[in-house]
Amino acid sequence: MITPLLLCGGSGTRLWPLSRKSYPKQFSKLTGDESLFQASAQRLSGDGFSPPMVITGSDFRFIVTEQLADVKIAPAAILIEPQRRNTAPAVLAGALKLEATSPGALMLVAPSDHVIPDAAAFRTAVIAAAPTAEAGQLVTFGIRPDRAETDYGWLELSEAPDFTPKAQPLKAFIEKPDAVTAQTMLEGGQCLWNAGIFLLSTDAMIAAFERHAPKTLAGVRAALDMAEIDLGFTRLAREPWDALEDISIDFAVMENADNLSVMPYDGAWSDLGGWDAVWRESGPDDSGVAIGGPATAIDCHDTLLRAEESHQHLIGIGLTDIIAVAMPDAVLVAHKNRAQDVKKAVAALKEEGAAQAETLPRDYRPWGWFESLVVDGRFQVKRIVVHPGAALSLQSHHHRAEHWIVVEGTARVTVDDEVQLVSENQSVFIPLGAVHRMENPGKVNMVLIEVQTGTYLGEDDIVRYEDVYARDQGAKG
Amino acid sequence: MITPLLLCGGSGTRLWPLSRKSYPKQFSKLTGDESLFQASAQRLSGDGFSPPMVITGSDFRFIVTEQLADVKIAPAAILIEPQRRNTAPAVLAGALKLEATSPGALMLVAPSDHVIPDAAAFRTAVIAAAPTAEAGQLVTFGIRPDRAETDYGWLELSEAPDFTPKAQPLKAFIEKPDAVTAQTMLEGGQCLWNAGIFLLSTDAMIAAFERHAPKTLAGVRAALDMAEIDLGFTRLAREPWDALEDISIDFAVMENADNLSVMPYDGAWSDLGGWDAVWRESGPDDSGVAIGGPATAIDCHDTLLRAEESHQHLIGIGLTDIIAVAMPDAVLVAHKNRAQDVKKAVAALKEEGAAQAETLPRDYRPWGWFESLVVDGRFQVKRIVVHPGAALSLQSHHHRAEHWIVVEGTARVTVDDEVQLVSENQSVFIPLGAVHRMENPGKVNMVLIEVQTGTYLGEDDIVRYEDVYARDQGAKG
Repeated sequence: MITPLLLCGGSGTRLWPLSRKSYPKQFSKLTGDESLFQASAQRLSGDGFSPPMVITGSDFRFIVTEQLADVKIAPAAILIEPQRRNTAPAVLAGALKLEATSPGALMLVAPSDHVIPDAAAFRTAVIAAAPTAEAGQLVTFGIRPDRAETDYGWLELSEAPDFTPKAQPLKAFIEKPDAVTAQTMLEGGQCLWNAGIFLLSTDAMIAAFERHAPKTLAGVRAALDMAEIDLGFTRLAREPWDALEDISIDFAVMENADNLSVMPYDGAWSDLGGWDAVWRESGPDDSGVAIGGPATAIDCHDTLLRAEESHQHLIGIGLTDIIAVAMPDAVLVAHKNRAQDVKKAVAALKEEGAAQAETLPRDYRPWGWFESLVVDGRFQVKRIVVHPGAALSLQSHHHRAEHWIVVEGTARVTVDDEVQLVSENQSVFIPLGAVHRMENPGKVNMVLIEVQTGTYLGEDDIVRYEDVYARDQGAKG
Repeated sequence: MITPLLLCGGSGTRLWPLSRKSYPKQFSKLTGDESLFQASAQRLSGDGFSPPMVITGSDFRFIVTEQLADVKIAPAAILIEPQRRNTAPAVLAGALKLEATSPGALMLVAPSDHVIPDAAAFRTAVIAAAPTAEAGQLVTFGIRPDRAETDYGWLELSEAPDFTPKAQPLKAFIEKPDAVTAQTMLEGGQCLWNAGIFLLSTDAMIAAFERHAPKTLAGVRAALDMAEIDLGFTRLAREPWDALEDISIDFAVMENADNLSVMPYDGAWSDLGGWDAVWRESGPDDSGVAIGGPATAIDCHDTLLRAEESHQHLIGIGLTDIIAVAMPDAVLVAHKNRAQDVKKAVAALKEEGAAQAETLPRDYRPWGWFESLVVDGRFQVKRIVVHPGAALSLQSHHHRAEHWIVVEGTARVTVDDEVQLVSENQSVFIPLGAVHRMENPGKVNMVLIEVQTGTYLGEDDIVRYEDVYARDQGAKG
């Protein structure tokens, strides 16, 4: 049995405005009906696979649980990184956690934001690599290249790859090459793209860290030994974790190890590292046009038009090599060759203090999500969705009163000493200063419209009395 | 004294998504803080000018009154066209209306969707043309050309124009020329752009129709004789109006008349006939970039980026010759050379039945405006703004109940037999089937949030009992 470890800490800005710090790209439906994270979890499930482990950031933990529940996958563990420390500590934490219950188990390390359309073929390749990994090799997966890509790392083999598939020894890692080198490798036929996916046994991994990165091993071991279990999450201990070196698994271990093999993979794969990659993976038509959502292309070529919400229509006319992504709070229009400069735009917005730089209109919380429908001077209207059985914290506000109108489901509402059930089409008034809470006692989502009025409407005007999600005073929601 | 006649019936689609059938471009703030219509009314006011007449469509009458009130201009008359019949009937209706009270008065006919930045210089030119118009000439205004424009009509003079300014005889109208002809005219120095602006005496105008378009004269006279005065609007009679030929003033009269003069005008002018013109008039910077609203250009050239709402950020990266206009419900991205194809996009959207083709999210009504903040299955949330002293009709709904929360000002609310004052931060529930009305008895705008719940939420679920604006059963709002 193989246990997947899904690396889910990324916060890429290259796919802004869809991907934001508060909701990075692995959670977005970039291609198809599931998020990249959901598709990754599903791809590595079924015969031969144990339930996955996930390692992610604290801000994303409830998105992870919600998205896994949506696709009916129960994780073996969800590890929470106190802060991002790149892939070496994350992979090692997974290996140590798995080793504790299943010594010498096989672990498949995979980023959760890649696209691999043929899941069955990929599973076959993973399972074919198992004997090599069981024999103590660190197996990395190599993708058959179809272009001289300079944005990927490459893997060099000693001979032509065997796509039957069969694991072969790795000769060398090649960092992102220049165009000439990439072209030479493409034509040479002995190089593959490095997908950053590994199959290894936990003991081989730990041994490799012992040899090549003993300080990282000691730190991660301490962070795991002192970890707290909180609502089912394994929170790695902050102090040893924060002291770790920020280093990738490639630099820390792989480039120094001598027990490396490559499993060639013949199918499609992309890391969706920019909007140009999304365009390529979206299946452009004969004119090179790829469309998402309610978008219309008139005389366009080699262009991606994505309208992310059903109520916002995007029209492109006479465009060539353009990426346009429309969202209600942010619109990106970029030349396709400039896809990598999207992060510049995000930096510029952040500089201006624009919320769009890092947060989505829809704000995910442990209990569900909310979005602001309108803010204007002294009032704000929100849509709030509360999951069955979930509850917001018991709280009060200094500067605003609230009207709640339930539009779907049933709410249990506490206002000071009174508790009442509020059903669809009923409303409640929460006076300024009143101690209040809303819960969803039902079996379906509860949706309510909140109308706030007051002189200050910031999310930080909150005094929290009780919170089942153990959040801090002043933390949002 | 000169009476302006502002032609305000246009429903251009070339500036979609800002300009829509429900709210055409003259009412939009395309350049500066006032709408083109407001700027046109203000440009033709002050010394030497009487209050303006306006001719517009029924759907726009309350936008006209509201926008004129905003700039503190009281119109002499607002004529309502039962349907659009091009400029000849509209100009003649204005002339006949003015002739009835001020025989032989001077009338300045001007589209309300043009840009003329130097209002004082233009007024000077108009006043300088008055003696020529008083002498019985039909004076058309000619703009000094600065490029070989093929999208405008041109005016040919017998000699070089005198920009002191001095009216001169017109030699010929030139329809939209080809590029070579336009270049020849530009270099020849005896041709001007035809701005479609005229100064004439009402009796000369009527005499010209008598001679060149007597059927139009008879029809318009009948439509005006049978007009109804309704809430201060002059509603031209539908039957004779509908029977009129759809024809421009140029074709009906000007191109046949022999009493034509041209007043040269040396200042800037544009008809904003497409987004390329808006780009040109928006004062692009040294890179050719023009920005509107919260938009950011990174390495762009000859590009227009407009974000029409403060909460939607638009980013352009590496663009050349691109027009991008972002609105919450619609986004246009077009090559600048394809600006004239925007109407194709609107046609495509209309074909699909997309509301964005013709209507804005904000819906203007006699009593104010509303916008839908969210519609989802069985609920809808609206923001409703009611002007001081205004009232919605007394109405009921078959399929929905409504919660009203007042967030600014005070409402007088009728529910069945009960009338109550509802002030800021108070709410009212309107059960399904209840006969209800909201009014604003105050001196400032009243803003309320309406939360509708029900199985059908269409605007046409309305039974109307009383309406101060004399609208039909089933008509909206």
